[in-house]
Amino acid sequence: MGWLEDESGLEKCRANYVPLTPLSHLSRAGQVFPDNEALVYEDTRYNYKEYCQQVTRLASSLKQAGILPGDVVSTILPNTPPQFEAHFGVPACGAVLNTINTRLEAKTIRYIVNHAKPKLMIVDTQYLPVLQNALTHLEGPQPTIIEAHDSLSGLNPSGQYQTYDDFLNQGDVNSKWYFPEDEWESLSLNYTSGTTGQPKGVVYHHRGAYILTMGTVVSWRLTLFPKYLSIVPLFHCNGWLHPWLMPLLGGTVFCSREVSARKIFEVITTEGITHTAGAPIILNMLANATEDEKRPITNTVQVFTAGAPPAAATLKAVESLNMNVTHVYGLTETFGHVTECLWNDSQWDSQDSDAACQLKSRQGVAMPGTENVEVRHQNKRVPKDGSSLGEIFIRGNAIMKGYYRNPKATHQAFAHGLFATGDLAVQHPDSYIQIQDRSKDIIISGGENVSSVEVEGVIMKHHAVLLCAVVAKKHTKWGEVPHAFVELKPDSSALPEQIIEFCRRHLAGFKVPKSVEFTSLPKTATGKIQKFQLRKRLQ
Amino acid sequence: MGWLEDESGLEKCRANYVPLTPLSHLSRAGQVFPDNEALVYEDTRYNYKEYCQQVTRLASSLKQAGILPGDVVSTILPNTPPQFEAHFGVPACGAVLNTINTRLEAKTIRYIVNHAKPKLMIVDTQYLPVLQNALTHLEGPQPTIIEAHDSLSGLNPSGQYQTYDDFLNQGDVNSKWYFPEDEWESLSLNYTSGTTGQPKGVVYHHRGAYILTMGTVVSWRLTLFPKYLSIVPLFHCNGWLHPWLMPLLGGTVFCSREVSARKIFEVITTEGITHTAGAPIILNMLANATEDEKRPITNTVQVFTAGAPPAAATLKAVESLNMNVTHVYGLTETFGHVTECLWNDSQWDSQDSDAACQLKSRQGVAMPGTENVEVRHQNKRVPKDGSSLGEIFIRGNAIMKGYYRNPKATHQAFAHGLFATGDLAVQHPDSYIQIQDRSKDIIISGGENVSSVEVEGVIMKHHAVLLCAVVAKKHTKWGEVPHAFVELKPDSSALPEQIIEFCRRHLAGFKVPKSVEFTSLPKTATGKIQKFQLRKRLQ
Repeated sequence: MGWLEDESGLEKCRANYVPLTPLSHLSRAGQVFPDNEALVYEDTRYNYKEYCQQVTRLASSLKQAGILPGDVVSTILPNTPPQFEAHFGVPACGAVLNTINTRLEAKTIRYIVNHAKPKLMIVDTQYLPVLQNALTHLEGPQPTIIEAHDSLSGLNPSGQYQTYDDFLNQGDVNSKWYFPEDEWESLSLNYTSGTTGQPKGVVYHHRGAYILTMGTVVSWRLTLFPKYLSIVPLFHCNGWLHPWLMPLLGGTVFCSREVSARKIFEVITTEGITHTAGAPIILNMLANATEDEKRPITNTVQVFTAGAPPAAATLKAVESLNMNVTHVYGLTETFGHVTECLWNDSQWDSQDSDAACQLKSRQGVAMPGTENVEVRHQNKRVPKDGSSLGEIFIRGNAIMKGYYRNPKATHQAFAHGLFATGDLAVQHPDSYIQIQDRSKDIIISGGENVSSVEVEGVIMKHHAVLLCAVVAKKHTKWGEVPHAFVELKPDSSALPEQIIEFCRRHLAGFKVPKSVEFTSLPKTATGKIQKFQLRKRLQ
Repeated sequence: MGWLEDESGLEKCRANYVPLTPLSHLSRAGQVFPDNEALVYEDTRYNYKEYCQQVTRLASSLKQAGILPGDVVSTILPNTPPQFEAHFGVPACGAVLNTINTRLEAKTIRYIVNHAKPKLMIVDTQYLPVLQNALTHLEGPQPTIIEAHDSLSGLNPSGQYQTYDDFLNQGDVNSKWYFPEDEWESLSLNYTSGTTGQPKGVVYHHRGAYILTMGTVVSWRLTLFPKYLSIVPLFHCNGWLHPWLMPLLGGTVFCSREVSARKIFEVITTEGITHTAGAPIILNMLANATEDEKRPITNTVQVFTAGAPPAAATLKAVESLNMNVTHVYGLTETFGHVTECLWNDSQWDSQDSDAACQLKSRQGVAMPGTENVEVRHQNKRVPKDGSSLGEIFIRGNAIMKGYYRNPKATHQAFAHGLFATGDLAVQHPDSYIQIQDRSKDIIISGGENVSSVEVEGVIMKHHAVLLCAVVAKKHTKWGEVPHAFVELKPDSSALPEQIIEFCRRHLAGFKVPKSVEFTSLPKTATGKIQKFQLRKRLQ
């Protein structure tokens, strides 16, 4: 223990120990960049002074509405200003922010509300019907509803609830924010998508959010005053923490309700966007946009992608649009991204475009703030040979506190003193990891492991293919065999045999899908393909 | 307190809580950038893999030599590789690093050794004579001496002690580093220059060093792979933490034994330096370099300056050499810099060069990691009017634990729940602070405060002046009056009356020096002018 012989008088005190919290980023921005543009949504343009005032009003109004530190405040909001304001205003009154996925059906919303027990919910007019359905047969007391209408988008107040604007107007713009007394206090509560069983409530701490935002500056090579287009829904890992990050840099956030290729190209080119982020499916949407939707991008946009391994073909297509993609990886449990496929300037710059995209499709190495990323099999690290398969384990400061009201699942996740991700990967000689599959997605055919990601990567290279998913199909002889679900590009066509033949040219025999089905693929709100739905279809 | 209704199972554990330490930066760099150039000194060029190995050997050798966690290891070294290696190798065995100023006389070194009680000292051959003198009449046991010779600079081993190279060779390159169990453990021990009384031992914590290095990335707009020329002596605030920062970015550090204009221009231009840092006196040296010493700098070098308020004239001169200077401010007690004169792109870009240099000479606003910077007078914040004088108080995560073996002084420094800097400043309407003086340097003339910094700023604009210092001179009528010590440029001349007349044109009467003396100014190792020496001369 590194304590000096005499440590008297050297204890922590108020002057030298400030609990880490992303609230500090916005509070500083309000002082340091008051006039810089902070938040833009259609005709609304807030500078940092105004953004801070909105947040102060929200925190004050929540307090007046009886919200106490530790209470849960839920939102069902698209990426509009109230959702960003809630990211600061809710913790600024000491409460815990629970952003609910806007695409959920009433039943799952009811489950979450029963579990998280929010005292108050801020809900966009668009989602009132599903919420009202969810709130019937609730176990506990009904939460207070604050309605965020959006007349700019033709969503006028329903008249049933206090509006968000009225709610904020009653707030005191001179009130003081709550800052955590302990950086381990709870900041937000994010429910997993629950592909297996019920959603689990992942609890984030102030400390982790602060440290990961600082680390992201390094990884994304961010400097002051970025112009950030918000696409990742803030109900997924709090938008990978980007709402908390931007004030640190005096950046401008461009909000969006509509996520379409046309809109994205329009904002990028008219506002001079420097940074954006989205799942590979968003990149795919941009790559496959019509000429009418596209606009030429003059300054390279730096793009983070995560949520699923991006196919090399997708990366190549989107980079030709003047977007430089960095692949990052994480889970809800890891505050969004915690590894990055760090571009190795000195050694990779000479690679051709195909090779570069292959390198970029890997999950990479620990971001700053993450201490260990290990690939382990049977309690031992696998060799860095690019072929030995193991599970990814992570240790770091951007790992959840645990699952809410579920100590058993928490204990299981942390059993080895590391967080067990459930993702299967190899580690290459340069230490970069590459996911082969979710442990439940791996296909075991005749005793051989088949990575659905690898097979999908090949199918994606076929000129007619827009998207695909490969899952295990029961087989009497081999146990399991790969089965491919394929979504074709508009106006393209292909035969199952052609896809199979294409795979045969690039893959070992046991990896080639035995059957191919053309279909529209079911997706989650982040654009993850819902393989569990596809698996059900095969049962 | 922001704790959820049910926090069971949500405690910190090994997986989600990693004590913050700058050791993590180098450990990650060894994994992520093994082949990138890390440390360059003359013909020696280490990549990160080799740098890590050197550090591992040092930590292992220290352990073998009986150094235990919490022990103090001192160095008397210039900015050569052993000094950088000690910044990681000493904490990597759990010990506390005490870098001693190489320009101190034997008496003060003896005081420090008696106070810090190092078990082992790593000393450059050049400083053995003064050390040997210091170690006579020592109170406690003699420390083990390891001699770092430097044959590249003609300093061969004295033969009296084990050499640093031999010491490292006995280390185990596969040994494990010590990482702190608590981020509040002591990392380093830095003695103040002791202008008033004995030097005080300032204790740094791992947490603060980690957080400030992350914040510096934002402030300095650093991105990956900088090329950093090390000029600030590492025995001052651990070189403003830059040795701990660079591995975070995979940067290359260029070491230097010799600090001369010729050498600096040479390294900048041949190695493509992107970043460097130094006290204003270093900037002044560069600005006044002969044509023979200068070389044209093609890519702008980003320069941090601190240690004294830079005169606008100095800033202007050095910027004409293609260096962009950011003025930062801090003290030994604040881990080096904690405020920055952040360039406000949107509002300052249109300023002319003179106005810009005026703006840049201010101390500015809190860096990320610093929570509050307040200018207070009689326990109240002064108005942001650019004229009300108060003392600077700071609260943040990059504030010392306290003074070693001096709880009384620690208590005094933190009495108000903020760290009292002893610096007097005003706060401008844009929140930027500007130091008028150290509290002990302010001149009170006829009841009016005269800022010596302001008067010096005017004198520095005189074409014949190289450097100057203004101090209080006793006066029967006015109490005190300003007296100027002036160092002229080589081959320049001026009369005292000309300097006084020049001041009269730019300053209110009571601020004009009543007397001017031409002299060579006494300086500390960082180039701070030793005003206390000058004051003595007037007594």
